[in-house]
Amino acid sequence: MTTHQVLIAGQWRDSNSTGTFQADDPRAAAPIPEDYPVSSWAECEAALDAAATAYDQLRSVPREDIAVFLEAYADRIESRGDEIRALAARETALPADTRLVGELGRTTGQLRLAAAAARTASWCLPIIDSATNIRSCYASIGPVAVFGPNNFPLAFGSISGGDFATALAAGNPVIAKANSMHPGTTRLLAEEAKFAIDETGLPPGTVQLLYRIAHSDGEKLARDPRLAAIGYTGSRHAGLVLKTAADSVGKPIYLELSSVNPVVVLPGALIERSEAIADELTGSCLMGSGQFCTNPGMVIVQGDAAGQQFVETVAAKFSQAPVGTLLSKSGQNGLASAVKTLQSAGAEPVCGGEVGGGEGYSYANTVLKVTGDRFLVNAEALQTEAFGGSTLIVVANSTEQIAEILAKLEGNLTGCIYSATDGSDDRHYELVVPHLRQRVGRLLNDQMPTGVAVSAAMNHGGPYPATGHPGFTAVGIPGSITRFTMLQCFDHVRPHRLPDILQDPNPGNVWRLIDGQWTQADVVEPVAT
Amino acid sequence: MTTHQVLIAGQWRDSNSTGTFQADDPRAAAPIPEDYPVSSWAECEAALDAAATAYDQLRSVPREDIAVFLEAYADRIESRGDEIRALAARETALPADTRLVGELGRTTGQLRLAAAAARTASWCLPIIDSATNIRSCYASIGPVAVFGPNNFPLAFGSISGGDFATALAAGNPVIAKANSMHPGTTRLLAEEAKFAIDETGLPPGTVQLLYRIAHSDGEKLARDPRLAAIGYTGSRHAGLVLKTAADSVGKPIYLELSSVNPVVVLPGALIERSEAIADELTGSCLMGSGQFCTNPGMVIVQGDAAGQQFVETVAAKFSQAPVGTLLSKSGQNGLASAVKTLQSAGAEPVCGGEVGGGEGYSYANTVLKVTGDRFLVNAEALQTEAFGGSTLIVVANSTEQIAEILAKLEGNLTGCIYSATDGSDDRHYELVVPHLRQRVGRLLNDQMPTGVAVSAAMNHGGPYPATGHPGFTAVGIPGSITRFTMLQCFDHVRPHRLPDILQDPNPGNVWRLIDGQWTQADVVEPVAT
Repeated sequence: MTTHQVLIAGQWRDSNSTGTFQADDPRAAAPIPEDYPVSSWAECEAALDAAATAYDQLRSVPREDIAVFLEAYADRIESRGDEIRALAARETALPADTRLVGELGRTTGQLRLAAAAARTASWCLPIIDSATNIRSCYASIGPVAVFGPNNFPLAFGSISGGDFATALAAGNPVIAKANSMHPGTTRLLAEEAKFAIDETGLPPGTVQLLYRIAHSDGEKLARDPRLAAIGYTGSRHAGLVLKTAADSVGKPIYLELSSVNPVVVLPGALIERSEAIADELTGSCLMGSGQFCTNPGMVIVQGDAAGQQFVETVAAKFSQAPVGTLLSKSGQNGLASAVKTLQSAGAEPVCGGEVGGGEGYSYANTVLKVTGDRFLVNAEALQTEAFGGSTLIVVANSTEQIAEILAKLEGNLTGCIYSATDGSDDRHYELVVPHLRQRVGRLLNDQMPTGVAVSAAMNHGGPYPATGHPGFTAVGIPGSITRFTMLQCFDHVRPHRLPDILQDPNPGNVWRLIDGQWTQADVVEPVAT
Repeated sequence: MTTHQVLIAGQWRDSNSTGTFQADDPRAAAPIPEDYPVSSWAECEAALDAAATAYDQLRSVPREDIAVFLEAYADRIESRGDEIRALAARETALPADTRLVGELGRTTGQLRLAAAAARTASWCLPIIDSATNIRSCYASIGPVAVFGPNNFPLAFGSISGGDFATALAAGNPVIAKANSMHPGTTRLLAEEAKFAIDETGLPPGTVQLLYRIAHSDGEKLARDPRLAAIGYTGSRHAGLVLKTAADSVGKPIYLELSSVNPVVVLPGALIERSEAIADELTGSCLMGSGQFCTNPGMVIVQGDAAGQQFVETVAAKFSQAPVGTLLSKSGQNGLASAVKTLQSAGAEPVCGGEVGGGEGYSYANTVLKVTGDRFLVNAEALQTEAFGGSTLIVVANSTEQIAEILAKLEGNLTGCIYSATDGSDDRHYELVVPHLRQRVGRLLNDQMPTGVAVSAAMNHGGPYPATGHPGFTAVGIPGSITRFTMLQCFDHVRPHRLPDILQDPNPGNVWRLIDGQWTQADVVEPVAT
């Protein structure tokens, strides 16, 4: 069997590899007979060199060309959509005709939003101080490595997802490291990316693809001076290893790691609409077999009669729901291990808690419960993420205890509070919300966290260890583009040498902060007084 | 002799100390007989607890109150200005009647700009997506520790400078760690800060002061979960130790470390105005005895006749200029050691290169030179920062070699290019600027880097190791406030629970990005179509 080629410096070429691997078909619980290479360090170096060359060229490429590339690529993904979804479905067990239709639309939508941002330079946030003639803006940072996760092969994919689109929109070359669980999907996307690069005339090394590298080479890559920044979405352990390497050389790394996404259901809400909330929770927690970064993995209720009943209602719904297929065997093992950890820490299974029940790799829909008292004495272990269709319901003895529990939480992507519509929970809300607000990137009311809208106002981020820095979002354009930029100031630089967006004439409806006012107008010479 | 008290939880109290220290009078080269405490870890913990309590309270304090505090504090600093400048002059040898007048004005100006930003919430950058009802803004992050440098006792002082003002403006309590070289100055400032806290009614633990802590306690502080972020300006070694500790727990730390601030003088500029540029360089490099973070420590010229002459001219001017007093004995030792390192790496002294020549701690004004060839083989050592009145002139053999030299530079705060006014250097400029641009936070034309205007467009930052992240500035409001914030998103949060700046009515001319347009208007309900 031939081993698939890697995309380096604009060419599909035989890999300088140290071995090969195959992905699994999770429904069949068996390997897919396609060999993908594990790249050597020499190959990483070839990619780094090509990225550096591409970056030198990209810096004089008009923004418009980058926009055209991103749009051409989106069109190509759509044209080949059926084949991409079919292979993604095989490699991930995500349904081709529902979930992957939505995910493909999200992916092309993101690429087009990134194109619009590239075209209008909306991410540059130009600031002009006309009195001092000091001007600044965000600018590209250099080659970016993107490590994509297993659970969104398209919308967070290393060569098609949000990190890719935003790194490119800012004018940076991308070295994509495919997720090893869907190399074929990534290959199809990379083929289209290369066609789009060729047809739009961007530098050949602008987009490159490696399928797998040794962990030690990942660390070397993170430390290498040819690489300017990193985007990583995936497991906490591997992410933190990369973070340590990147931090040691002061390199920006943007991580999206694990998160239990606490949901607080206040007493009045349970009295008012317990059944509906249980339905929402079940739908949100089991969607995509529970493998969402914003999956509601922890629910906190009060232990009154309504709270006790809620636990039973949720467990009944979880038990009745079909068990989905997981992304991989390691995902199945990881989920089983996490549930064990939670049990060892004092959580009791209400339903589920065992491997199987679905097609291929699977794990029973699981509800665990634990008292607030118990949570407080073992808070760290009881925040173990169980990545899949599993949630832990913490039964507190008072609203005050809910506040105490929230104060023990690590950083999370999201936090939700359900409260009664008649205002009867407002007193409780005020008591608990300060603790939750500081520990999450996105606070929701009366809504589960799994919908992550692609909105300029979105924050798909949060305090450590949900991410590596609480000031950045991985979703939402132009905000997420800022991650892959540096701040550049121009102090008395001669006018013709300024970037067009910092020159006196506005090059085209760019929003700029001029002398403290946001405007799309030209810079007007200050009138001598 | 009594030991001075620390400011903890709103009270001046006897320190729970592990020892004491005294500052030096650098002109007398002798200790100032005032004992200051080295705080124990227990005292750090007391400060952390008080900061956490203060933060809980601060979150419901109106922005206006924070603004009033910052303004009251600025007024108080002015009222006590003579005494503060006199003590600062004694502790630092900076001239009380010139430099410290300017620095005091800059300090109060920054506090007032921070007050204005607090009042108008201009740093929050609210984003509202009315169609999805998702809203986000920057918000306070929690207690911030500020470690101030030795060279700006007021404008970058731990309890009065830019980090202090911006952390406060965002609504965070500050634990100030005084620079050990000017504890008395910091004490006077802290006294005024406490009075201003008391009279404006902010929580007592909002501003606290420790004079010195063990290095190991600094690392513990950096890792402590009660502390949310750190601002540090100072030596690279100590800063990187704190960074490693903070990074290990995913805590934002903003560093301003060493920088050689390269200045390129292109051939045409030398032909045109060599003498004037030599004057500018001399003035900039020797100002404040050369102890500026943006001091031009490296100059790159071509080795033609004009370039060779420039080296001689600069050396003559350096030799003729008076030798200033350095901040400290350790500064004198550090400068001597750095010059030795540069010499060992191949730099030759043209003038200076020895301890003494001024009042007290001092070091001769020093010009070193090295060939471009030599620089390229020993680029790392030849970028050693010599903090003081010393510069290294790199004599390159061509513009192409200048580009090569720039490509070897580490990250710096600033980079300057002087070119001929008649356009004859433009070709050279285009060749070298891309390399310099990516390696510096602020690019200047025809101007030395030591003037750091407090402007919204300023970037006093740059790539590692000049700072820890290339996307942030330490000077310039509101930009520098963003460092001490987190991004908070509100997804379908009920209107009355939103921060006022995210509610539909604009609470007072706040600039907000609503549906992609910057506006000071209210949110208008989308019209159904």
